Amino acid sequence: MVVYRASTTAPVNIAVVKYWGKRDPKLNLPTNSSLSVTLSQDDLRTLTTASCSETYTEDVLLLNGSPSDLTGARTQACLRELRALRAALEAKDASLPKLAQLKLLLVSENNFPTAAGLASSAAGFAAFVRAIADLYELPASPTELSLIARQGSGSACRSLFGGYVAWRAGAHVDGLDSKAVEVAPAAHWPNMRALILVASAAKKGVSSTSGMQQTVATSGLFQQRIAEVVPANMETMEAAIAARDFPKFAEVTMRDSNSFHATCADTYPPIFYMNDVSRAAVRAVEAINTAAGKTIAAYTFDAGPNAVIYYLEEDSETVLGTFYALLESTEGWKKGTNPKSSVQLDEAVSDSLKTGVSRVIMTGVGEGPQKTDVFLVSEDGKPLSTSA
Amino acid sequence: MVVYRASTTAPVNIAVVKYWGKRDPKLNLPTNSSLSVTLSQDDLRTLTTASCSETYTEDVLLLNGSPSDLTGARTQACLRELRALRAALEAKDASLPKLAQLKLLLVSENNFPTAAGLASSAAGFAAFVRAIADLYELPASPTELSLIARQGSGSACRSLFGGYVAWRAGAHVDGLDSKAVEVAPAAHWPNMRALILVASAAKKGVSSTSGMQQTVATSGLFQQRIAEVVPANMETMEAAIAARDFPKFAEVTMRDSNSFHATCADTYPPIFYMNDVSRAAVRAVEAINTAAGKTIAAYTFDAGPNAVIYYLEEDSETVLGTFYALLESTEGWKKGTNPKSSVQLDEAVSDSLKTGVSRVIMTGVGEGPQKTDVFLVSEDGKPLSTSA
Repeated sequence: MVVYRASTTAPVNIAVVKYWGKRDPKLNLPTNSSLSVTLSQDDLRTLTTASCSETYTEDVLLLNGSPSDLTGARTQACLRELRALRAALEAKDASLPKLAQLKLLLVSENNFPTAAGLASSAAGFAAFVRAIADLYELPASPTELSLIARQGSGSACRSLFGGYVAWRAGAHVDGLDSKAVEVAPAAHWPNMRALILVASAAKKGVSSTSGMQQTVATSGLFQQRIAEVVPANMETMEAAIAARDFPKFAEVTMRDSNSFHATCADTYPPIFYMNDVSRAAVRAVEAINTAAGKTIAAYTFDAGPNAVIYYLEEDSETVLGTFYALLESTEGWKKGTNPKSSVQLDEAVSDSLKTGVSRVIMTGVGEGPQKTDVFLVSEDGKPLSTSA
Repeated sequence: MVVYRASTTAPVNIAVVKYWGKRDPKLNLPTNSSLSVTLSQDDLRTLTTASCSETYTEDVLLLNGSPSDLTGARTQACLRELRALRAALEAKDASLPKLAQLKLLLVSENNFPTAAGLASSAAGFAAFVRAIADLYELPASPTELSLIARQGSGSACRSLFGGYVAWRAGAHVDGLDSKAVEVAPAAHWPNMRALILVASAAKKGVSSTSGMQQTVATSGLFQQRIAEVVPANMETMEAAIAARDFPKFAEVTMRDSNSFHATCADTYPPIFYMNDVSRAAVRAVEAINTAAGKTIAAYTFDAGPNAVIYYLEEDSETVLGTFYALLESTEGWKKGTNPKSSVQLDEAVSDSLKTGVSRVIMTGVGEGPQKTDVFLVSEDGKPLSTSA
């Protein structure tokens, strides 16, 4: 019995120009382009092994040890496209094993707690697509694979690259020009760091999938965002990254996050992802920049209350130190971290962060998916776990 | 010694289409039209006595017992215009006493605690202008006086009328077409009620005067609000009031509040007036409407965390009852109030309201400024107090 296997890791990405709104929900085509920073897989990654064998009787996905649904239209679209590409290879070269017709066993694990409320679907779908592409030995480039991953989860297309990644919205009805490209590799601006403040939130209110379509349908301000605000932000952001201009990068990051959450608040009924803890993080970043006399930190928020704070390695002491002074006993600081900062926060801001932040994650810009010899499926086709 | 006196009351108004943004800060000309409901003076009013006498040596304003600055450009603009109108009357009729040249003593008191964080400047400036106009026996109509009051505090122009009041933005550079008009008297739709949930907030972050100009200068979404969103809201709102269509009135009220706070969140740096308590009030209103199977309550928020909830008298039981169940021990319920409601709120929403609401105010639509014989200046020109 032959079991074919391929394993890959894939990273989380956090957008600095946000994806919010689909112009085609079926093909996952966005209303606007977006841009993200890929975060280091040392801290946040999905590991996925794709395998196929004649002994398998159905497609199976195990996610963090639990069976996960593969029958959704989006997952099926990814599987169908990947199998079609493999089948085309097999048709051209009769010596290739017929993998396209075999059932798949996919086993996937995150190295971070799901409870952290971090959007793991981007890393998950990127790893899913990359692992199967590797299993099938597809010659497809990351950009070509991004067209497939996009159909699984929009922002997943950006997790096929490391560094600084744009997802071009495209204009075609078929979505063939809606894909991810590398704006700059991690090595271009390697000192970019991110501190994630995980807000101990209750359950998430509105899923981003349904939330963004409510915004498209009901927000009176949304058209302005996609017609004017985002195109300008994309242009400024790409120039800021090219020039390694942190103050400009930071300003666009903060403005775009604000604009995105404004359109959420303008949705009817309104969607609130940020809470009082999130707002305290905004005020803390403003206080850090004011104290520094220049912009050395930038906040951004996805569809939840967690703050992601971008800063440069050389400003670690001030940026990390400000939060460390409040959150020293909070889980997640890296060993040996003991930064000092003289930034004084308003008491209400300090109190809110102290009571509302349940964990921190220290990370930075990182690489794209990596092939690995760590397998989550044994040579004889049994699921394994790294966390056992 | 003759002391000339006139006393008036003036109401608070709460906008359902919001004023936010000046196109001319000096003349207080707005970027967009707005529309408000005048609230009953039984619950919220300013009482102001204007007096003048040859014995006065300077213009003086006492506000809730404390001397208040009269030298600001806006106050001076109001005083200058009112005196010019009086001087014109005196020039035409030599028999009139020469009041325009006398110094003024103005004494003003609110019947509600300033700590409530309710915008009292609208009622304050409306009473200020109306009292002096009465003292001077000016023949000016409320709309003519609204041109003056507007220069003191924009939204004050709407407090010169009762009922449902529009402030037409106007287009002229001199602002002579930027004035308030009655859309409908209180008697047209007298069963409109308002419940105010006062959120025990810390100090206010950003004053509305500076906040709105930051929005105009920095929000990428604001132009859409003034060009498209507000004109449509004004039109729909006026039709809803004409037809006494509460669901439509409510929808525009909620959408416009959301739109206004969205442009605040889109300001750079962002302005947050609503907090987690405010958002809980939004969710409570949504729950009430869902339970009722129709829209019977509408939230709106000004430049602060307090919720104003509009509803109709006939829905008092359900709307008030939902909040009374949580807030029975909170200050402000009218004697004999004991409404029952079967609406169940989410626990997080209930908890947030229970801990965050410090006072309620029960009120409804009401009349405009009223001349009164209650004076806050004695016949011999000494300040009095009603609250002693």
